[in-house]
Amino acid sequence: MPAGSIVKRRLAQAATLAFVTVRMHIMDGVQVETVSRSGPVMLSVISNYAVCITAHAITHQAGYLAVDEYVRSGMVIGLGTGSTAYFAVERVGQLLANGKLKDIVAVPTSERTRAHAAQLSIPLATLDEHPALDVAIDGADTVDRGTLALVKGGGGALLREKIVEVAAKKLVVIVDESKLSEGLGPHFDLPVEIIQFCQTHIRRQIEGLPSLKGCKANLRMPYVTDNGNYIADLKFDAPIADPSQAAAELSDTVGVVEHGLFLDMASVCIIAGKDGVTTTHAPGNPKKRKDAPS
Amino acid sequence: MPAGSIVKRRLAQAATLAFVTVRMHIMDGVQVETVSRSGPVMLSVISNYAVCITAHAITHQAGYLAVDEYVRSGMVIGLGTGSTAYFAVERVGQLLANGKLKDIVAVPTSERTRAHAAQLSIPLATLDEHPALDVAIDGADTVDRGTLALVKGGGGALLREKIVEVAAKKLVVIVDESKLSEGLGPHFDLPVEIIQFCQTHIRRQIEGLPSLKGCKANLRMPYVTDNGNYIADLKFDAPIADPSQAAAELSDTVGVVEHGLFLDMASVCIIAGKDGVTTTHAPGNPKKRKDAPS
Repeated sequence: MPAGSIVKRRLAQAATLAFVTVRMHIMDGVQVETVSRSGPVMLSVISNYAVCITAHAITHQAGYLAVDEYVRSGMVIGLGTGSTAYFAVERVGQLLANGKLKDIVAVPTSERTRAHAAQLSIPLATLDEHPALDVAIDGADTVDRGTLALVKGGGGALLREKIVEVAAKKLVVIVDESKLSEGLGPHFDLPVEIIQFCQTHIRRQIEGLPSLKGCKANLRMPYVTDNGNYIADLKFDAPIADPSQAAAELSDTVGVVEHGLFLDMASVCIIAGKDGVTTTHAPGNPKKRKDAPS
Repeated sequence: MPAGSIVKRRLAQAATLAFVTVRMHIMDGVQVETVSRSGPVMLSVISNYAVCITAHAITHQAGYLAVDEYVRSGMVIGLGTGSTAYFAVERVGQLLANGKLKDIVAVPTSERTRAHAAQLSIPLATLDEHPALDVAIDGADTVDRGTLALVKGGGGALLREKIVEVAAKKLVVIVDESKLSEGLGPHFDLPVEIIQFCQTHIRRQIEGLPSLKGCKANLRMPYVTDNGNYIADLKFDAPIADPSQAAAELSDTVGVVEHGLFLDMASVCIIAGKDGVTTTHAPGNPKKRKDAPS
């Protein structure tokens, strides 16, 4: 087997482990470039044959820490989806199995998380039975360093994530440091769920919103959400000047089902960095939404 | 054939003509009670055998008047759906056929209207090709007499109607006088399109919105919209105190796709009454929405 193929195979395995999508350009099995929807994966090619995932272990730590710090026995918790939230789900399963946590009920944000939690014997429920959660733990595509405002929806499940997480008294976000930015917009395209009918028109309406001036609303194709809708990915050259205004204008646009701006929601951000795990708290009162439980 | 059956058959024919749903209770072929989603149809039983529809002719007049007054050659127009809008579509077809109107392009608000317009050889388009309409003509479930604020969506197509009508420089509403009310809410349940996922939770969230306090959000069953969503019909005992605030809170609720409050949209209301047709204009500037064309 040529050297390049082995590196490719190892990378594919690594990608599976890290729950991300990795695209590779391999030049004679040496140069490796990775691109991922959930940010660059920190892969280093030690030789032509060995791939070492450095981020994996730190994200793992961050996910575990989120549960150890913020989940207590008797809580109703929201469980997020993706490479980082995966470790939080795993940790809840562990602590239930060894008896350190008891009487937990979990509301998953996706079918994938539901399946993972069920496999670990975590008791599951929906918001219909438990409309108010004590805490939710999830990843994000961008975290504004100053405010902990988030962009989410790279995976396309923003609506289900938002409906669960807005119902939580506390939202704990776990990210690797590549997701941190100054402001929202240019760092990661803002996903907006729109109805299929007149999607070209709706994307034009979005591009014309005063608070989103200059954005380009690209249709994510081929992609249909769990709710049967499309996703428009909004591309920005400069940070969104007023995210609250942008959120209000998007919500008020006919044909927009939901948007990926998660504002005034995250209380805490746990960051997996090169040098370890750090925690940042939201300034002021992080729960200003009218529909948030008190 | 017994007398009762003949009356039933005549009523069924009348209902077909008036494009409404009529439920009948016939006692010996004499007493007739009618109930319709689009308001009571003014049917009078002249004898055991003859049924006279009085509303039909006046609504017909109102629909024709809307086109005669507000549609000019060269316009892009929005065509509504339902028993009253039907006559406007018919009139556009007539005026195109006799050459009194030319170069009209119409955007329909439903498949039914599309089929009707196509049958009359009215040139059709979508908002993707024509994002700004000169005028749209449609019915409504409630019209607030003072402001011309509307409730729409009894037929379940509120999203498609709103996306087309918000794109019109002028919205002309045609109703029979039974749709007029003081305030919005108690007169006709407010339809809200919601996603299927966690619908019980979403309806509870809606009932808990400050501006909708006291409403009951009933699931319309069995019903799924063109967009694959459910409809919650909001029942009120008292008029909604602040419809703008209610609209904003509904739009901001995660899981709400669109609501049936059509505010700051109608410019003119043409009313078919017992004594003929009257016209009311909206007070002030009827186009305050940010996404309305200028």
